[in-house]
Amino acid sequence: MKKIINSTDTLITEMINGITKAFPDTFKRIDDEKRAVVYTKSPIKEKVGIATGGGSGHLPLFLGYIGENMIDGAAIGEVFSSPSVSEMYAVTKAISSGKGVLYLYGNYSGDIMNFDMAAEMAADDGIPVETCIGADDVASAPKEEKENRRGIAGILFGYKIAGAKAAKGASLKEVKATTDAALENVRTMGVALSPCTIPAAGVPTFEIGEDEMEIGMGIHGEKGIERGKLKTANEITDYLMERIIEDLPYRKDDEVAVLVNGLGATAPQELYIVFNRVEEILSKKGIKIYRNYVGEYATSMEMKGLSVSLFKLTDEFKELLDMPVKTPMLLQQF
Amino acid sequence: MKKIINSTDTLITEMINGITKAFPDTFKRIDDEKRAVVYTKSPIKEKVGIATGGGSGHLPLFLGYIGENMIDGAAIGEVFSSPSVSEMYAVTKAISSGKGVLYLYGNYSGDIMNFDMAAEMAADDGIPVETCIGADDVASAPKEEKENRRGIAGILFGYKIAGAKAAKGASLKEVKATTDAALENVRTMGVALSPCTIPAAGVPTFEIGEDEMEIGMGIHGEKGIERGKLKTANEITDYLMERIIEDLPYRKDDEVAVLVNGLGATAPQELYIVFNRVEEILSKKGIKIYRNYVGEYATSMEMKGLSVSLFKLTDEFKELLDMPVKTPMLLQQF
Repeated sequence: MKKIINSTDTLITEMINGITKAFPDTFKRIDDEKRAVVYTKSPIKEKVGIATGGGSGHLPLFLGYIGENMIDGAAIGEVFSSPSVSEMYAVTKAISSGKGVLYLYGNYSGDIMNFDMAAEMAADDGIPVETCIGADDVASAPKEEKENRRGIAGILFGYKIAGAKAAKGASLKEVKATTDAALENVRTMGVALSPCTIPAAGVPTFEIGEDEMEIGMGIHGEKGIERGKLKTANEITDYLMERIIEDLPYRKDDEVAVLVNGLGATAPQELYIVFNRVEEILSKKGIKIYRNYVGEYATSMEMKGLSVSLFKLTDEFKELLDMPVKTPMLLQQF
Repeated sequence: MKKIINSTDTLITEMINGITKAFPDTFKRIDDEKRAVVYTKSPIKEKVGIATGGGSGHLPLFLGYIGENMIDGAAIGEVFSSPSVSEMYAVTKAISSGKGVLYLYGNYSGDIMNFDMAAEMAADDGIPVETCIGADDVASAPKEEKENRRGIAGILFGYKIAGAKAAKGASLKEVKATTDAALENVRTMGVALSPCTIPAAGVPTFEIGEDEMEIGMGIHGEKGIERGKLKTANEITDYLMERIIEDLPYRKDDEVAVLVNGLGATAPQELYIVFNRVEEILSKKGIKIYRNYVGEYATSMEMKGLSVSLFKLTDEFKELLDMPVKTPMLLQQF
């Protein structure tokens, strides 16, 4: 295992220390022990708090999206493991200003179990909690079983919409409804070329041949839908886009936000080559790109591969996308 | 070779197409054939133009730093190869508004030869050109032979200072003097854990054992100063910091900008673990961190490793660092 770390025991603590030292104006640990980080301005008065969380190893997910008009707090687990109930509960209390808290995270059973328990504890304290689940990976289950789909990079759009809606002063029910509607319009699919290694395990999450790729593989190495010889960038992009677009039908003149996300070890130039093809495909179909994001927004440590996400826009989503955000780890403009 | 590309022949063109489509408000190709990209507002009246360039494979270097208050144009070479004289000359003409053009690029002989020839052609057109060379890699030559040092990630600070000084309306001579002074205050050193593959070559740039690292290795795989067993993050950071700091003596209460740069395949969490240690070291020495940058600012495609840069600040450099910039590929705030 080739990683620049000190030990698997101290990794998460040192990572959080590094991040909070790097951006002291944004990130605040709830206490030195807890793996729970909130926005320094928390709780923000008259605003629904947005909490997220999940396993480590996906930076800038999850805590990297904390900031002005985005997420208010994140509970941080071990690499690829759910955070604890007590960390989620601590985040919830720290970001609650009386208007309630929205939980927004990916569709993984460990996270759901723990966040649900934290919500119950919060309810006992009189903090209403609603939950939105990202389940954008079209490769992980057929359309008819959408509730079984994994949440991957497309959750970025959920954060943006939830954060902007909450910042406008919407109620908890309104933030949930708008975020659910946004997540409903997001589809993602990816391809993996190489595995990553969970530090505590010390061995790669899966094996794959030197000339192979796996389409639809999950960001923790979960099985995809097709393994085969490595194809060209255009062939891969065509395959991903076909499945993404057919899953949520589009009409001519529809508008989308596009995310081409690198999983960790993919050279930026490859991401732009894929974006170039995405633009060609959308242009041919008469679908307009309203905004695009190309870079590492949700990684799997040093996994090689990428995903493409489309977010089908309405006028309200465009307006919410346009709201400025200030999160130090976020690439480029929003 | 595991890359998501179409062919080595079309790679650079498709990359530039993807980037210019992604950010049409910022990037403008000089013409469809030329591998030369300039800021859409070029030439900016009453401003010294800043040109850079170099081989591809280092995104966001070089063209990613084009934008408001940064770089005005970049000539783009094949992977790890110098751009052509005609591309550099085309950039020079496109960004010249009469106040002259500063060339700012890394210390590589191919780049120097071609940029010098472009400067002569520009002079024939009545465009004065001055040159600043980034040579921040302390591992690549001893202090006494600083002119032989390679330019690596620390050039970021040169771009920032040159861009801000030019934006304030300084003359070509003033921009050159301030940029030279800034580059003089930048030191970088890195470590590589794995190679990358130049697409046209198809084989890794070097070989390295599964448990080995090379300290001081260049970003194209140039030999470093010590190869040995992989050490811990703190040991590596201590080693790099010792050599960086001793090369440019510091006093208590000095202020620095810190850059922890990932080379491509290094997980963000590792970069923050290293930053955590950098902060501890500087804190013990009484050196204050004025700003920090942690992420992928200068990559070597899918090379695994990182570098640490320190930029020793003066009041003028702090003021110039504070000037806002708008470059879509730049991570976080400047």
